[in-house]
Amino acid sequence: MIGTLKDGVQATAIAIILERKEGTTKTGNAYLDLTLGDKSGSLECKLWGYTPELHGELKEGSVVNVHLTVSTYNGRLQGKIGTISPSSEDPRKLVKGTRFDPDAIAAEVMAYVNQFTEPMTKKVAEELLAADWESFKQIPAAVGNHNNWPGGLLEHVWSMCRIGSFVADHYKKLYKVPFSKDKVMFGIICHDLGKIVEYETDGVTIKYAPEGVLVPHIVSAIGWIYSRANAWYQKNPDVMTKAEFVCERNQLVHIVASHHGKEEWGSPVKPATLEAVLVHHIDNLDSKFMHALGLIEGRPGSLKGFSEPSKTEKTSYMLYNAE
Amino acid sequence: MIGTLKDGVQATAIAIILERKEGTTKTGNAYLDLTLGDKSGSLECKLWGYTPELHGELKEGSVVNVHLTVSTYNGRLQGKIGTISPSSEDPRKLVKGTRFDPDAIAAEVMAYVNQFTEPMTKKVAEELLAADWESFKQIPAAVGNHNNWPGGLLEHVWSMCRIGSFVADHYKKLYKVPFSKDKVMFGIICHDLGKIVEYETDGVTIKYAPEGVLVPHIVSAIGWIYSRANAWYQKNPDVMTKAEFVCERNQLVHIVASHHGKEEWGSPVKPATLEAVLVHHIDNLDSKFMHALGLIEGRPGSLKGFSEPSKTEKTSYMLYNAE
Amino acid sequence: MIGTLKDGVQATAIAIILERKEGTTKTGNAYLDLTLGDKSGSLECKLWGYTPELHGELKEGSVVNVHLTVSTYNGRLQGKIGTISPSSEDPRKLVKGTRFDPDAIAAEVMAYVNQFTEPMTKKVAEELLAADWESFKQIPAAVGNHNNWPGGLLEHVWSMCRIGSFVADHYKKLYKVPFSKDKVMFGIICHDLGKIVEYETDGVTIKYAPEGVLVPHIVSAIGWIYSRANAWYQKNPDVMTKAEFVCERNQLVHIVASHHGKEEWGSPVKPATLEAVLVHHIDNLDSKFMHALGLIEGRPGSLKGFSEPSKTEKTSYMLYNAE
Amino acid sequence: MIGTLKDGVQATAIAIILERKEGTTKTGNAYLDLTLGDKSGSLECKLWGYTPELHGELKEGSVVNVHLTVSTYNGRLQGKIGTISPSSEDPRKLVKGTRFDPDAIAAEVMAYVNQFTEPMTKKVAEELLAADWESFKQIPAAVGNHNNWPGGLLEHVWSMCRIGSFVADHYKKLYKVPFSKDKVMFGIICHDLGKIVEYETDGVTIKYAPEGVLVPHIVSAIGWIYSRANAWYQKNPDVMTKAEFVCERNQLVHIVASHHGKEEWGSPVKPATLEAVLVHHIDNLDSKFMHALGLIEGRPGSLKGFSEPSKTEKTSYMLYNAE
Amino acid sequence: MIGTLKDGVQATAIAIILERKEGTTKTGNAYLDLTLGDKSGSLECKLWGYTPELHGELKEGSVVNVHLTVSTYNGRLQGKIGTISPSSEDPRKLVKGTRFDPDAIAAEVMAYVNQFTEPMTKKVAEELLAADWESFKQIPAAVGNHNNWPGGLLEHVWSMCRIGSFVADHYKKLYKVPFSKDKVMFGIICHDLGKIVEYETDGVTIKYAPEGVLVPHIVSAIGWIYSRANAWYQKNPDVMTKAEFVCERNQLVHIVASHHGKEEWGSPVKPATLEAVLVHHIDNLDSKFMHALGLIEGRPGSLKGFSEPSKTEKTSYMLYNAE
Amino acid sequence: MIGTLKDGVQATAIAIILERKEGTTKTGNAYLDLTLGDKSGSLECKLWGYTPELHGELKEGSVVNVHLTVSTYNGRLQGKIGTISPSSEDPRKLVKGTRFDPDAIAAEVMAYVNQFTEPMTKKVAEELLAADWESFKQIPAAVGNHNNWPGGLLEHVWSMCRIGSFVADHYKKLYKVPFSKDKVMFGIICHDLGKIVEYETDGVTIKYAPEGVLVPHIVSAIGWIYSRANAWYQKNPDVMTKAEFVCERNQLVHIVASHHGKEEWGSPVKPATLEAVLVHHIDNLDSKFMHALGLIEGRPGSLKGFSEPSKTEKTSYMLYNAE
Repeated sequence: MIGTLKDGVQATAIAIILERKEGTTKTGNAYLDLTLGDKSGSLECKLWGYTPELHGELKEGSVVNVHLTVSTYNGRLQGKIGTISPSSEDPRKLVKGTRFDPDAIAAEVMAYVNQFTEPMTKKVAEELLAADWESFKQIPAAVGNHNNWPGGLLEHVWSMCRIGSFVADHYKKLYKVPFSKDKVMFGIICHDLGKIVEYETDGVTIKYAPEGVLVPHIVSAIGWIYSRANAWYQKNPDVMTKAEFVCERNQLVHIVASHHGKEEWGSPVKPATLEAVLVHHIDNLDSKFMHALGLIEGRPGSLKGFSEPSKTEKTSYMLYNAE
Repeated sequence: MIGTLKDGVQATAIAIILERKEGTTKTGNAYLDLTLGDKSGSLECKLWGYTPELHGELKEGSVVNVHLTVSTYNGRLQGKIGTISPSSEDPRKLVKGTRFDPDAIAAEVMAYVNQFTEPMTKKVAEELLAADWESFKQIPAAVGNHNNWPGGLLEHVWSMCRIGSFVADHYKKLYKVPFSKDKVMFGIICHDLGKIVEYETDGVTIKYAPEGVLVPHIVSAIGWIYSRANAWYQKNPDVMTKAEFVCERNQLVHIVASHHGKEEWGSPVKPATLEAVLVHHIDNLDSKFMHALGLIEGRPGSLKGFSEPSKTEKTSYMLYNAE
Repeated sequence: MIGTLKDGVQATAIAIILERKEGTTKTGNAYLDLTLGDKSGSLECKLWGYTPELHGELKEGSVVNVHLTVSTYNGRLQGKIGTISPSSEDPRKLVKGTRFDPDAIAAEVMAYVNQFTEPMTKKVAEELLAADWESFKQIPAAVGNHNNWPGGLLEHVWSMCRIGSFVADHYKKLYKVPFSKDKVMFGIICHDLGKIVEYETDGVTIKYAPEGVLVPHIVSAIGWIYSRANAWYQKNPDVMTKAEFVCERNQLVHIVASHHGKEEWGSPVKPATLEAVLVHHIDNLDSKFMHALGLIEGRPGSLKGFSEPSKTEKTSYMLYNAE
Repeated sequence: MIGTLKDGVQATAIAIILERKEGTTKTGNAYLDLTLGDKSGSLECKLWGYTPELHGELKEGSVVNVHLTVSTYNGRLQGKIGTISPSSEDPRKLVKGTRFDPDAIAAEVMAYVNQFTEPMTKKVAEELLAADWESFKQIPAAVGNHNNWPGGLLEHVWSMCRIGSFVADHYKKLYKVPFSKDKVMFGIICHDLGKIVEYETDGVTIKYAPEGVLVPHIVSAIGWIYSRANAWYQKNPDVMTKAEFVCERNQLVHIVASHHGKEEWGSPVKPATLEAVLVHHIDNLDSKFMHALGLIEGRPGSLKGFSEPSKTEKTSYMLYNAE
Repeated sequence: MIGTLKDGVQATAIAIILERKEGTTKTGNAYLDLTLGDKSGSLECKLWGYTPELHGELKEGSVVNVHLTVSTYNGRLQGKIGTISPSSEDPRKLVKGTRFDPDAIAAEVMAYVNQFTEPMTKKVAEELLAADWESFKQIPAAVGNHNNWPGGLLEHVWSMCRIGSFVADHYKKLYKVPFSKDKVMFGIICHDLGKIVEYETDGVTIKYAPEGVLVPHIVSAIGWIYSRANAWYQKNPDVMTKAEFVCERNQLVHIVASHHGKEEWGSPVKPATLEAVLVHHIDNLDSKFMHALGLIEGRPGSLKGFSEPSKTEKTSYMLYNAE
Repeated sequence: MIGTLKDGVQATAIAIILERKEGTTKTGNAYLDLTLGDKSGSLECKLWGYTPELHGELKEGSVVNVHLTVSTYNGRLQGKIGTISPSSEDPRKLVKGTRFDPDAIAAEVMAYVNQFTEPMTKKVAEELLAADWESFKQIPAAVGNHNNWPGGLLEHVWSMCRIGSFVADHYKKLYKVPFSKDKVMFGIICHDLGKIVEYETDGVTIKYAPEGVLVPHIVSAIGWIYSRANAWYQKNPDVMTKAEFVCERNQLVHIVASHHGKEEWGSPVKPATLEAVLVHHIDNLDSKFMHALGLIEGRPGSLKGFSEPSKTEKTSYMLYNAE
């Protein structure tokens, strides 16, 4: 509902405080700049004459009952808060997240793992997912670039799974080359798992975690796969020779290590297997499509019919009218 | 059969002359370095004591009956030609081309066009294909990078069509965004059409054409789409307003102009519509997969289990054993 | 006169509103930040206690009679508006434009075209100019880089014409190489014509047009030259063979397509004819000279004796004292 | 002695075959191009009229007794082999290696580890070195760039240890900042350990190993440190909290992962601790000094007083006369 | 003391005005934003109701007695000035500078020069230092990157001298290569001397000088060394031949000209002598260590346990707890 | 005449030996690969059965009487030498040089200097030219890129003078900006003077000089201008103040130091005066035009109607038919 308020209306709403900044007028009165949001979108609001005693702490991430008046200021909608008070509503019900059912799409991703026929590939994937199953469903795929909402990583992985499954079948059928579809799906599912420790979320707000400065997600994931695969082989030394194990483990590590595609994009090695080539390009396809879609679904830019410009891609995107 | 000859055998074959270099020994005798090939592969051969009077001209692209002895020289197979004489065999039957039936896959591509519902998009695509239908089926997708065989462009376009159709449906279903699947398919089918004048082929040998130095394929295609679309609107002014026409034409031009993705990769504009984003990334996916596959199917490199290194990607690719 | 006002004076002026931003003081009173300008320069002004009822709409691009007091605020001049009211003055008479007579310099440019001896080159140039003659005289050469004023493109083209005519004669005389001076002049005159649809101007304010996001000026111009040249040859098939026509048309297209000099600077092809080499470098020379001159003629920077730094060239420029 | 032979001499020598290429003269006679070497240097030689039956296999890495005549050919010394026969000499005694005593300098490196006071840092370093102690002493630091001889990695690490120990003390004393000297020395000693599986050597010849294509040395080392550190903490859970352990382990991983300094140089993360900054720059200093020294000690280039040009650094280096 | 003030305290202090900005409230009252500092750090303060008559000019670089109240505003400490009046304290006693005794470390640097055995190298170094001895002790090593305080260049040179002396001895001992330690130390001491005219300081405030726009420090130093060396040889023609002199002079010029290491980092030539290689890498080591240390000693960043991000290095640095 | 020999002819010629390589056939006979040339061009020739006793030394740069037979080998003309003997002809009369009269164009360049009105600019230019007048007339502008023949630098400077004089007048007239035409011409004349010590020529053969490795031409010229200008001011202290002198000298140094335009192109500073902007762009224009012209006048490339590809510009250039 916050996202659909129009100029001139007065409204009562339950909303989550997404951002909070305190200010003081020149005459010495405190005020708050609050960004309020719910599933429908967000609105920047002013609370004049703020006093903690009267209004409470109004922390980021808390839920409030609010009455506000909407007007246009310098061409953008702004809310002026009349009354505001704490609400007991669960913030997770209000925050914008993936538009799909996390449990359903997580189950679909898990179903791909269940079909794996390579025992080590299957076991490592299962363990990695099991170790952080709840985080995996909550973490975003990025902060501010694409799929940057709770559940965004899962949504990105799920979309890639559907495309990757089709594309792997397509090439195996056309060119009869015996690459491993298991490894393609492993790479798709695990490529960004390290973001579980690179970001922090409580399901409502999202931040970078300090851990990611020293070990970004590609580094963590290399370490995790090495450890899990080594442990698996210690328990299953008869499944394959040592040399075969090393080759298999290195392929799993390689797909994840190379998924950014180039050294200057943060991968310490370039894709050198067909599986790694596919994972890199399908990741790129879904990331860039979702990045563009995010801008298209956001606020219009200053050029009529185009989105705000993308900072990373250095272009605006054409808007689409409803069908 | 040329591609399956082994060390030590003597063989009689019908083959096409793919490359020809003339040399003179220090003692003044002429010889030829001939690369002979058929559908199964190619072999570098020596013809000692060459005389035009005796052996004929032996031009590139001509077919010969040859008797040769195969040996290993510095770790590579080499043929020593005993007798060689012109053959009346049609060279097109011997040359390695797409491994698919060109007429069948061209028909599949045409079927996508037949389903277009946007009249201008459909008409422009039809005219562009009709104007160069035979060339479209013969030209390679590249000289020396991927799909570099007669029919390679068609094969690349067809593979992209299948992936693109799936991916466009996938995103339209998931995200309900009204982008145009017609334009995605138009972009896939037409993105490299300019190569018809950038390369020259007689179905046997393939070369760059001088025309491509001044107007590479992206430039030609921009001009063609402009001209065809303008002509269509002159005949169909009632289908849409002038402004709508300009917007529609610009979108078609844009998808083709931006398909390399970045200025430094030769596109004068970056993808700025969802259709253009999809076409660029699906082109990239298929090109890079086919580039890696080409190396994997070629001669092994010096590192055991890996292909020769890619000059453009600066990595070798892991080889796969038969399933 | 706006550009010559000094600290402490009170003045009455007729000025154009170049920029307008609305604000509200903390005590709830509206005010306007107006940038007023005339041919002599511009000044940032404050209008306290703004009410639409009292002051009118005060839109960007409109002309006003104004009384103001000039003072220094944080080291910069600022006007405080006393009274302000609409004026019936034609804004085009007030706006800063090219310092030359547009009709005179346009005529000089046209005179070069009149001397062309190559019929197709002449016809295409004439048609392109005729189609947008008024726009050609009004559009800037850039938004914010060089010649960024109404008439700026024409001024840039005219300056390049004089230099290009000299340079082409110079090299033809010294090195006896039969390149085409007509094509050099064609390239100079048409290289940036696509900006006519990349920018929007009413002769007073200048903005990017949405059209330029999908088809930047190099892409438009490729399409235009293709269409015009094809149409010319359809009517004049006897002037040259088809192959000659293709070669001639491609050269015209090439000069414009390559005028940025490199792929990373937005050209889909590098200059590959002497004409294209000359056009690229003369464009570069005039653009960079005018860019530096614009900074030198603007506000001084923080380093004594130097201009404000150039964002694109990453240097400041030395100031010159009057002769 | 091979490295000191002069033009015109005849000599008998025991030498190792470093490179071997087989050729055939136009008249059909086989010959070998052999590069022979011993500790003093190497010489390119010709063996005319080679027959396996007569001369034996003459494999790379084998030792031979040889009689040869030295002459100048196109300005370079060349040996013409008279007689050649297998020798039972141990090739490892003949090959050029580090100019220092490997056991002595390895002991000095180990002594640094023995002084570590951080238990996990010490244990992980000890285990990594113990696991590949002999390889560590044999492997080169690079193939063809610097320290590219058996024992080269050890020599590079030892030189860095001496500099790093001084520099760490220097900064700790001057700036009182409590970074960990143990971690600096750990980083120096372990930064290139992954090369043990990236290269293959038998102490005589050196090659890239296929394993390095999928997991270059930075990737291997990340995996190794993760596994070893995790195992250590499982056995020593009381030494520190889980959070402290994660932080300590991440720092060790980080130093090695970031030692190339930038993403485009192959590190998935930039140095973000003082220890990592020091290790990267000391590695750079020693690598570049040794690279220049290697060229200076090699053959003179075509410019008088300068070395052959460096392919990576794109300069020649000034030669020095003996003191 | 300014740097140690805490939230809630009232304090009286003597401080230097590091930055000054004037503002006006919406109700027309003037105020000042003053950054006050002393050796212990700095604090942003507000002076409401500023009038020059009452408070004096309060220029940048002047010293004041101030009474202030410290509070937290948007998470950062801020001072509210009660009373403020001019102080007669010498500003140089208050400004943050090198933490070492400038005279002592300058003497240590000079002692290295005194040991030079090459007469020209020694004379040129002595003259360059003598010509600007006081400036050399006052100038920073950079504006805003590392050692950006009065005396910072001297401190940087001194630290490099200690490291460089060790490293030069280390390599001379290990590899017996007769490079010149005198020239290494000359390069270390003189590499940034041109900053004496690239920056301006009065020992309190530091700014870029206009002169540096046309002749940055590498260009000035090239000119100075040329002139000084030429003059020395005119007086000492018997010490060496003309050719030897040219070679020696060029080496001195080269070390300084190449110390940034690459053309894109501002050096017109890459290091091509061992001395130049060492100077470049030791400069890099000390600059980057001090840059990281400066951030670590500054305000913490938004990620717990890490500094604010470096603009040039694009990473944050891990913080260290006190020992 | 060498440059006009056709396939099948036998001819007697006087020619200069431009390149010489010695070889041995597999049967042990020596031969020479000689590139012979005169003003009309060059031809690669074979001298079979070479013996120093019979044929003499045949050094590079010497002149010979030769009888040869011309044939086509692999599509290129080749001469087979019959008899060859030393000639007493002056090699300077035979070598290809500038197509203009060096004395005439040098006088024209000098005439520009004579018109300078700024005393220091004039004196420094005169001294620099006088110091190396003969070298200035002989040196090429580049080795292998453009104007790479004896006299090439002079020809390049002269062409730039004519263009620069026109362009400086053009901009001064149009924009009334008081930049210094003297300094533009100074920059044009002196920008590459350092090449006098970067290259070595005896008027016949051209090579890089070792000196250029340490001090490339931009570095030398900075030193020279500093020294000359300082010396001038010592003798003429009354002409301007010290500050004015420093500013004037820095401008002269700056134009030369910045003429490559960017750091990555070898300039330690970017053009920051209008004079420097003009010199950089006019240098670029003439260099790139002459580079393209050199390829166009050379051998045709493999694409019909186009030159061999440029290694630096990465394009071929369209050929022109005679007028």
